[in-house]
Amino acid sequence: MQKWKLLSEREVLKAVVFRYSQKKLKSPVREVTGDFDIVSCANWVNVIALNQAGELLMVRQYRAGTDELTIELPAGALDPAEDPLLAAKRELQEETGHTAINWKHLGDLAVNPAFMTNTCHVYIARDCAKTHDLNLDELEEIEVLKRPLKEALELFRNGSAKHSLSVASLGLAYLQGELSS
Amino acid sequence: MQKWKLLSEREVLKAVVFRYSQKKLKSPVREVTGDFDIVSCANWVNVIALNQAGELLMVRQYRAGTDELTIELPAGALDPAEDPLLAAKRELQEETGHTAINWKHLGDLAVNPAFMTNTCHVYIARDCAKTHDLNLDELEEIEVLKRPLKEALELFRNGSAKHSLSVASLGLAYLQGELSS
Repeated sequence: MQKWKLLSEREVLKAVVFRYSQKKLKSPVREVTGDFDIVSCANWVNVIALNQAGELLMVRQYRAGTDELTIELPAGALDPAEDPLLAAKRELQEETGHTAINWKHLGDLAVNPAFMTNTCHVYIARDCAKTHDLNLDELEEIEVLKRPLKEALELFRNGSAKHSLSVASLGLAYLQGELSS
Repeated sequence: MQKWKLLSEREVLKAVVFRYSQKKLKSPVREVTGDFDIVSCANWVNVIALNQAGELLMVRQYRAGTDELTIELPAGALDPAEDPLLAAKRELQEETGHTAINWKHLGDLAVNPAFMTNTCHVYIARDCAKTHDLNLDELEEIEVLKRPLKEALELFRNGSAKHSLSVASLGLAYLQGELSS
């Protein structure tokens, strides 16, 4: 099993949140070439944020992709060259007004290695406290939800909250022994 | 908190694995309109497949998005109008040659509600057995890995396996009480 060889690449277009390019690749073990769609987004962060009362912080907002009101973990895109931990702290503060001293990196996810290039960095922040007002982008409308952890996990279990990157972040927390099932 | 109102939508292009359109949306509570990228893919399935020895089945393959050899759960795209469970059974058989009688639906993930429209259906199959040869697409080269569950989970814990939808599928299994942490 080896990596395929790049024969050519061309950028098709730049959208607002992604660039779309096409790669022509050749298998090193067979005489096969193929054209592959490549979608490049900024890297992202997701934050599992718990306050001192043991409540999980979540954000409720309208999402254009699914045309639904969703419940998700605080999350967002890194600014160019931004440190992932600083981005996690910034997004948590902007979306929930909460800050924390106690941060831990849980891991990095490949969003979709099949056709997406980017990484989602996942952190857990404990002992969060409300220290700031929300600071939202022009197109963001966010309601902050706080629920006891067990009750919050039930929202993810029963499908009320179902963003794949939120659930993957919880998966990493289970794998790292930071949550018990 | 309300859904935004669709003012207009236009399809920008059809790629191989997605369609890209732009929506103009208006907030119902503020005098704000915005343009949103929308990426539409087929719906997908992910399968947590365990054999009678308690080993987890995984697939190793080259992925063009990240230009890496990856380790992932068996997964794939639904054919048009295909039933998700049948798609899960088909993908498991095609990618690993394994079939199972004991299937359970763990939940459905919104892949990325911010700008993607599609769903990833997640199943767990227990008591899988190798009954068929692999049946791969022209552009697929897959090596099947079988590891005792604990050893397999360590690959996801330490980042050797990091596809967000694989990790999200494990997250759903933890949430549903199908895995213990």
